[in-house]
Amino acid sequence: SETRRGLPREEMTENGVPSKAKVLTVDTMNPTVKKVEYAVRGPIVQRAVELERELSQGVKKPFAEVIKANIGDAHAMGQQPITFFRQVLALCLYPELLKDRTFPEDAKSRARRILQSCGGNSLGSYSASQGIESVRQDVARYIERRDGGVPCDPDNIYLTTGASDGIVTMLKLLVCGEGATRTGVMISIPQYPLYSAALAELGAVQVNYYLNEEKCWSLDISELQRALDEARKHCNPRALCIINPGNPTGQVQSRQCIEDVIRFAAKERLFLMADEVYQDNVYADGCQFHSFKKVLFEMGPEYSNTVELASFHSTSKCYMGECGFRGGYMEVINMDTEVKAQLTKLVSVRLCPPVPGQALMDLVVNPPQPGEPSYEKFIKERTATLSDLAEKAKLTEEVLNTVEGITCNPVQGAMYSFPCISIPEKAVKEATDAGQQPDMFYCMKLLEETGICLVPGSGFGQKEGTYHFRMTILPPTDKLKILLDKVKEFHWKFTQKYS
Amino acid sequence: SETRRGLPREEMTENGVPSKAKVLTVDTMNPTVKKVEYAVRGPIVQRAVELERELSQGVKKPFAEVIKANIGDAHAMGQQPITFFRQVLALCLYPELLKDRTFPEDAKSRARRILQSCGGNSLGSYSASQGIESVRQDVARYIERRDGGVPCDPDNIYLTTGASDGIVTMLKLLVCGEGATRTGVMISIPQYPLYSAALAELGAVQVNYYLNEEKCWSLDISELQRALDEARKHCNPRALCIINPGNPTGQVQSRQCIEDVIRFAAKERLFLMADEVYQDNVYADGCQFHSFKKVLFEMGPEYSNTVELASFHSTSKCYMGECGFRGGYMEVINMDTEVKAQLTKLVSVRLCPPVPGQALMDLVVNPPQPGEPSYEKFIKERTATLSDLAEKAKLTEEVLNTVEGITCNPVQGAMYSFPCISIPEKAVKEATDAGQQPDMFYCMKLLEETGICLVPGSGFGQKEGTYHFRMTILPPTDKLKILLDKVKEFHWKFTQKYS
Repeated sequence: SETRRGLPREEMTENGVPSKAKVLTVDTMNPTVKKVEYAVRGPIVQRAVELERELSQGVKKPFAEVIKANIGDAHAMGQQPITFFRQVLALCLYPELLKDRTFPEDAKSRARRILQSCGGNSLGSYSASQGIESVRQDVARYIERRDGGVPCDPDNIYLTTGASDGIVTMLKLLVCGEGATRTGVMISIPQYPLYSAALAELGAVQVNYYLNEEKCWSLDISELQRALDEARKHCNPRALCIINPGNPTGQVQSRQCIEDVIRFAAKERLFLMADEVYQDNVYADGCQFHSFKKVLFEMGPEYSNTVELASFHSTSKCYMGECGFRGGYMEVINMDTEVKAQLTKLVSVRLCPPVPGQALMDLVVNPPQPGEPSYEKFIKERTATLSDLAEKAKLTEEVLNTVEGITCNPVQGAMYSFPCISIPEKAVKEATDAGQQPDMFYCMKLLEETGICLVPGSGFGQKEGTYHFRMTILPPTDKLKILLDKVKEFHWKFTQKYS
Repeated sequence: SETRRGLPREEMTENGVPSKAKVLTVDTMNPTVKKVEYAVRGPIVQRAVELERELSQGVKKPFAEVIKANIGDAHAMGQQPITFFRQVLALCLYPELLKDRTFPEDAKSRARRILQSCGGNSLGSYSASQGIESVRQDVARYIERRDGGVPCDPDNIYLTTGASDGIVTMLKLLVCGEGATRTGVMISIPQYPLYSAALAELGAVQVNYYLNEEKCWSLDISELQRALDEARKHCNPRALCIINPGNPTGQVQSRQCIEDVIRFAAKERLFLMADEVYQDNVYADGCQFHSFKKVLFEMGPEYSNTVELASFHSTSKCYMGECGFRGGYMEVINMDTEVKAQLTKLVSVRLCPPVPGQALMDLVVNPPQPGEPSYEKFIKERTATLSDLAEKAKLTEEVLNTVEGITCNPVQGAMYSFPCISIPEKAVKEATDAGQQPDMFYCMKLLEETGICLVPGSGFGQKEGTYHFRMTILPPTDKLKILLDKVKEFHWKFTQKYS
């Protein structure tokens, strides 16, 4: 006795479904989750982890170690944490140490202040869902200093679980409508794939605008307009996301460009989201970080009283690189009062961001001051890290541009280079035949032959027919040199092989 | 010149929308977010915070302090952290302390082991998205010990940002379909409102099954069947959530009940979600914690090879109460391989759970062992906390049951009492007239008159026409006694006033 699906009857339920089938299968799971992609931790990184395991098991490879330049993970690449930050955190976690004479007094007073803001004086208590009040006050004062006195209200600050959490939360608020009225969100191409992943999961429409690679990945308003006009035919574009300094593209936007973007957002009634997690990572001469908030307020009340803006920062990048703590904040400007209440309610469901990350965020926005015992050491450590990064940014650009078939824009800021690579037609065909993106094919070969793990440009988006990879500038200088030499050699061989 | 909406034309855009209106308003925001409710941090808690501020500003109140018994936040209520855990965390954060002779050797070796599992030996690095491998191994060994040797594969362990994060992620995977095929998820009533909030946000159908208050909040299979049969008329119920020990209801499920639930899930093809964050919080004689995993495996391969189960644990409850770290894990059993790959991809978008929380989770599952220098102190601290909680559970039940009009089931486990309160009809009417739930009316009056902050039963769900509140048993014994006496007095006066 068999059923129409060819299974023995005893394995079928009445309605003809195999009874041993899982409740949750890839066919019956949330379809929006299936659409999510996140290249920074995608298949190439999984293969890199496998290779590491094989190496440790003694399997012979054409390389001695895997170098992961796929993710902005500074400490994993050997960057040292800021001593003061870690001292204060240790004091907060184990307050017995407040009796220890070897800890500097300013670290102790910082720790005492943080603990006083915690329930039961413990980092183990939940904080307010919006974040510890004293930390939000410190963030507000930091923003005011950074922006030359533009006022900041601590009530507009929400502490987050890394910047990603804040970005996803804001996008979540913005999504509504169906079909042609579905919310569209404008993101740069190339983009950081958190954006595309979050939009896919939320079922929002991703509206691509292309950065201008020829002009050092700059943002043209005419391209914004083109993308918006196009998108309006099939969705309701409501938000515009900017990453500055750029990820994966490393550009730093000019003040003029930011002003133009704000004017565009005001004219077209778009909610602005400014991802500014690399705000201290500016290396190139003549470049400077301008916050969207500051420019907005300098444009006068016509803009500063109306344009809705959320900006994001984090403990993970800049000179601290403390990714593991998942610390961050967002500031919301001109947000409707009722929406703000909804935002506060929404974040309360997850109780609170990790409190050690909040404490760390507090230290980032309120570091040692001149005259305090830890000041000099702090400045020395911060400067060393930032000038090291600046040197590596330059080195990366210079070496990559010596390779025929690789063109690399200056790494003005952030932590990545996103060079354009030429891939011979034969290689493109072989990749396409295997159902693989040509730059994925390229990066996989690079990984297998050299142990270097980069992320293909297709994971970030790129102009049709162009190919790129993203590499971090984070490996220690000596390792970075080796890495760049290996890439150079690989590219030459790869080009030879497929030409 | 005015438009049909009565605004001056210059304030309107072509299509008649006021140009100065916000892009994001409560009318144009995500409608599912609006439906989210989370009573544990709802309006009553906001009022409590306001009252605290007023008190600190010298405003006269009929009480000297606000006592928050609304949330299971142990450290905020004065519970002390486990010394060993905090020592290891301090060592991890500031490894200079490894040279300090005052730290015990077992704390140091634990710290070294954790650091070796971190990129660049720093808690500031991202971990694998699924969590640090060595921590997942320790979790697996803990589960095996706890469950009398039932095997556990570290690949089935996902570290999470508190249990909430794991629960929401699992629900997210399960949701699909539209209209009558939309995913339904069965949750107990009363429930922990994370579930209803997450289901509202995901647009899933909440399927209520009622716990039996008369039988000490036990779970009747006939009620599960009723709820399921009913739900099948309008949605596709695919998952069954259980909280054991119960929140807010404090019951501990019998082994027999768990077996029955598993059999029911198998028969009805439901994905099981077992929220077991209170697994160490069992106080009542004759009660014992049984994990769903263990019972499932004891039922033999017919069940252990087929029933899909996700179970959740956390660093926030039990004897450690480290809520602020947002540490947790989930174990998935019999999950489809492709779905597991999708789950891994999904969590990778948020990069990783907070690493300090992962380190803490590691210590919870791998505490000091007999013979190690920290063992005795650890046992002493753990026992003190748990027996203190057991005493307060009993005290709460006893005192509340002396009040006429309050009936309180034994607090067998977890951290809450959820007594039934009788509210006079006059009060019900006054509340209803004011558009308020009667138990919210009651709790607000209690707060204003006594400074005690409880959560109304309506925030958790309850049988129509019954009223409850949830209070934690966490305040220190002397404060808890005062709190209970005040509740007693308030209830008497309230009943008098409205009778």
